[in-house]
Amino acid sequence: MKNFSLKQCKTTEGFFADLQKMNAEVTMNAVYKRFKETGRLDALKCKRLDIKTHRFWDSDVAKWLEAAAYLLSRWEDPQIRAWYNEAVEDIIANQQDGGYFNSYFQVYEPENIFTNRDGHELYCAGHFFEAAVASKQYLNDDRLLRFADRFVDYIYERFVEKKDTAFTTPGHEEIELALFRLYELTSEEKYKELAQFFLNMRGCAEDPDVFAGSDYSQSHLPVRKQTEAKGHAVRALYLYTAMSDMAKLNEDEELKAACESLFDNIVSKKMYVTGATGSTYTGERFSSAYDLPNEKAYAETCAAIALVLFCDRMLRITGEAKYGHVIERCLYNGFLAGISLDGNSFFYTNPLEVSLEKARYNREQAPAAKEWLPIIERVEMFRCSCCPPNVCRFLELIPSYIWYENDGELILSQLISSNLQGENVEASIISDFPKSGKVCVKVNSHGKKLRLKIRIPEWCDKMFDNAEDGYLCFERAFDGEEIVIDFAMTIRKIYPNSLINDNAGKVALSYGPLILCAESVDNAVPLSSVRVGEVSGASVDLSLENQKFIKAIVPIEYLVDNKKLYGYEKPESKSACLNLIPYYAWGNREETSMKIWFVEK
Amino acid sequence: MKNFSLKQCKTTEGFFADLQKMNAEVTMNAVYKRFKETGRLDALKCKRLDIKTHRFWDSDVAKWLEAAAYLLSRWEDPQIRAWYNEAVEDIIANQQDGGYFNSYFQVYEPENIFTNRDGHELYCAGHFFEAAVASKQYLNDDRLLRFADRFVDYIYERFVEKKDTAFTTPGHEEIELALFRLYELTSEEKYKELAQFFLNMRGCAEDPDVFAGSDYSQSHLPVRKQTEAKGHAVRALYLYTAMSDMAKLNEDEELKAACESLFDNIVSKKMYVTGATGSTYTGERFSSAYDLPNEKAYAETCAAIALVLFCDRMLRITGEAKYGHVIERCLYNGFLAGISLDGNSFFYTNPLEVSLEKARYNREQAPAAKEWLPIIERVEMFRCSCCPPNVCRFLELIPSYIWYENDGELILSQLISSNLQGENVEASIISDFPKSGKVCVKVNSHGKKLRLKIRIPEWCDKMFDNAEDGYLCFERAFDGEEIVIDFAMTIRKIYPNSLINDNAGKVALSYGPLILCAESVDNAVPLSSVRVGEVSGASVDLSLENQKFIKAIVPIEYLVDNKKLYGYEKPESKSACLNLIPYYAWGNREETSMKIWFVEK
Repeated sequence: MKNFSLKQCKTTEGFFADLQKMNAEVTMNAVYKRFKETGRLDALKCKRLDIKTHRFWDSDVAKWLEAAAYLLSRWEDPQIRAWYNEAVEDIIANQQDGGYFNSYFQVYEPENIFTNRDGHELYCAGHFFEAAVASKQYLNDDRLLRFADRFVDYIYERFVEKKDTAFTTPGHEEIELALFRLYELTSEEKYKELAQFFLNMRGCAEDPDVFAGSDYSQSHLPVRKQTEAKGHAVRALYLYTAMSDMAKLNEDEELKAACESLFDNIVSKKMYVTGATGSTYTGERFSSAYDLPNEKAYAETCAAIALVLFCDRMLRITGEAKYGHVIERCLYNGFLAGISLDGNSFFYTNPLEVSLEKARYNREQAPAAKEWLPIIERVEMFRCSCCPPNVCRFLELIPSYIWYENDGELILSQLISSNLQGENVEASIISDFPKSGKVCVKVNSHGKKLRLKIRIPEWCDKMFDNAEDGYLCFERAFDGEEIVIDFAMTIRKIYPNSLINDNAGKVALSYGPLILCAESVDNAVPLSSVRVGEVSGASVDLSLENQKFIKAIVPIEYLVDNKKLYGYEKPESKSACLNLIPYYAWGNREETSMKIWFVEK
Repeated sequence: MKNFSLKQCKTTEGFFADLQKMNAEVTMNAVYKRFKETGRLDALKCKRLDIKTHRFWDSDVAKWLEAAAYLLSRWEDPQIRAWYNEAVEDIIANQQDGGYFNSYFQVYEPENIFTNRDGHELYCAGHFFEAAVASKQYLNDDRLLRFADRFVDYIYERFVEKKDTAFTTPGHEEIELALFRLYELTSEEKYKELAQFFLNMRGCAEDPDVFAGSDYSQSHLPVRKQTEAKGHAVRALYLYTAMSDMAKLNEDEELKAACESLFDNIVSKKMYVTGATGSTYTGERFSSAYDLPNEKAYAETCAAIALVLFCDRMLRITGEAKYGHVIERCLYNGFLAGISLDGNSFFYTNPLEVSLEKARYNREQAPAAKEWLPIIERVEMFRCSCCPPNVCRFLELIPSYIWYENDGELILSQLISSNLQGENVEASIISDFPKSGKVCVKVNSHGKKLRLKIRIPEWCDKMFDNAEDGYLCFERAFDGEEIVIDFAMTIRKIYPNSLINDNAGKVALSYGPLILCAESVDNAVPLSSVRVGEVSGASVDLSLENQKFIKAIVPIEYLVDNKKLYGYEKPESKSACLNLIPYYAWGNREETSMKIWFVEK
């Protein structure tokens, strides 16, 4: 099973095309400018700056370059091309003779190259390698590929041959999946070998814990023995992605089984309803099973992206619908909340609930008395600004998650308006998602018989005759005739597992793939006092001009504040309506409280 | 309105007498031994030790000395008396010529005396002054009183006359209430003057914020302008206690109004159902209104004690029943949870919920990835071990909260088995609290007409003909006849205010003054899946041999784990019984999950 390149599949009109347009017109520029201002681009010249550079700055730039390569293949922008070229020139001009490159270490700590497992050098390298693949594949620019080739040789020599580094495997995984991408592009064995070296060494006796603790960086067990998602969520998910790559490449059933266990562990015990993962601030890590606090959720935007990468790889192995379900959950919720509606600003953390009163109170405290809480307004830049450029490149990658194919089988996983120009097949989709469940699919298989499978979203409760394992199945030759389906979006209640303590007694409200939230700016009723009953009387207003903004109105009851902190009488309740918007759209107006999970009446 | 001394009022048999017996036989010894082992006693010799001493160690010892003075007045123990004498001798022997004493500063940082507002020097001094009052009042030992007198002169000279200290008012309040106790005992004006100096200067322009932030140490406003409880909870409540003392002494209506506002703010917005306060770990502080997380509650044992001190002072001013309600809430719950049933070990933090799975998972993490969570088993000692000796002295002080009197009026506030030998009145109480609501009160007013008021507990839903403002009122001469009352304890549901987000949709279960909790060691049903309906079918087992251990059995439903993390179908529910014990008794057996607030069906 494989997916299609961004050359082959492109969004057309609609929801995701608009997001990609925003990326081209706004986000790519905005992120570049903040990076320029903060010295991240100048750092590539590898000279001492007035500003102290940082050991993971290169990864920020590399992700932007990767995004630029995708973007420039579909959207000419002389300014972005010039910025791209300048950065690429700086990188290749300052690569060390041996092949090493890191704009921080080679300037400030040349003596410490590969001495600190948390130095992020291999992580930065990995992102450069991904940019190299994108440059070559989409712009036919092989400058970064040559840079990567020399850099890989250097890493190979140090880690595999000489073994003279202070650590054996990267503290922050990423390079492994990047090396598999290099291998996929070039078929050069050394890339695969190095990736496999890092994966097979991980958690072995020869890979002692020299950083923050073995769980934290997934070094507690050899990868084939890992079945519970642990530690830093982004690191973990990048690792699992590379593990899936290796499982597929080598048809390694043991590794595949580990990946399946990890996925099942995440989606059955450690994932927010938004697709976010990594619930704790401290360690930015997966917590114990069912520990999913809403207000103190870490839920990094990069983790939502990384979960999609992992699911994409698992789809390539198995073709199973469950991976598409999770990709959809992330796309419309946990990922998309990470960027503002205007494309200019970002969330790093993605709480499922915020209290404006608490946030304001906390803000007034002196540092010594300030609690950690997620921020409640998106910002243009973070000190550690990994998420914004990750959003840029991910927005470009979305079309690659729409279709998957193998011999005689074509899977439509994401119902996104797009055109596909495959080698043996063409297709187009007109999708009304997420405004309605209406989709029109046309496939032309040029007379060849094909098994077409269209994923039935998890939230769809319609019955279909041709449903099988989560897909609508059609088996025939296709000549471009319209297949029209209405998956029928309605407001539905989502029940959490009874072991999620933070959601006990509560329900979330959804509309199709969208998790809904209520903001206090739209509701006079205090959100904690809301009691949700039947939702059959709910209505959805799709007429708002900004198509990203859907408003749902749900009849509720709320408890009247009886002014007693504790009492023996049940507080009185009254009827009202709750106004909800898609979760991804929260925090785009004035400061507000926000809530996803409401007490069920 | 005044209360009675510990000479006048003593517990007899029953619940609190047993706790006092435990204090005499176990706790006082255990705390002393840990303090001895850790160098806290040797530190008083003011020589350099192998162990580094700490700037607030003196306060630990001073609280133990205060407790010892109370204890030795009712219970002869040669060992404790010898320890008491040795410590007193060390203190007076090492007081500086000028009057200053601090076993840390005079040895390790003599140049830094009164340079650091967070140095805890005045806090430690205050605790010595309280010990001095206790020694003089109960043992007729005036050694510490003479020590205190010289020390106060030194402080007065430095802070009031020379004003050559680096700060104006203490960073950690305590000395103010201690000075009022010295004044009450001796009627010497300088004590009152110094207390009033610190109180009146606090939060004024002359008292700049030189520590962790002005809210944190209640320096954001002059005390008469403070109406919202803010900052470090123990500091705040010690301050409010002293403010009440000053309001009463000077009949200062403005200050009294501030105290009433602060009390109302706490009990209507910032107090746990257990009487605990100070909900956030960071800053150990009061949070915003209704922010009362259960699992991450800080809820320091000292704060429960300090809230009783504040309520006691407000009772002395107003005689109002509401202060007695809160004292009762703290006594049986938030305070008492701070000590193990065997009297040997302590909680500093008092969460209202713990998840064993989460605690264990967190424990396995490396420090860099470890979240802050309250501990789940009491320990004998803390690095900052303020709570254990505070428990010791507070257990001795309990009889002083039973009765209050003024001209012609006698208030019975706490229904505790005890004998009172007042100047004009004698009384005895036989109370079955907290096993049942039965109380037998005998008062002898020697033929004099008296207005006797017996507080009707908040949880009592019986109607009484002679009820007035929360009291049962009797007005006549009393000659020792029995007044028998049954306040009728039953299992009742407590509803939280609808604005407490963490308790939305939930109820707590209570039996009389006891907040109940369920431990996973007693329940096969996962606590997060419990749904509480009607409690009329609940039963209480009072037959357990340890009278501190009451078991309640409440019929409930629970949700069956459907193995889905999120689903569109409501999980199935089944009937079961929930076993509950008093909250104060939690965490006394094996490691367990624990919960107070349950989803209401």
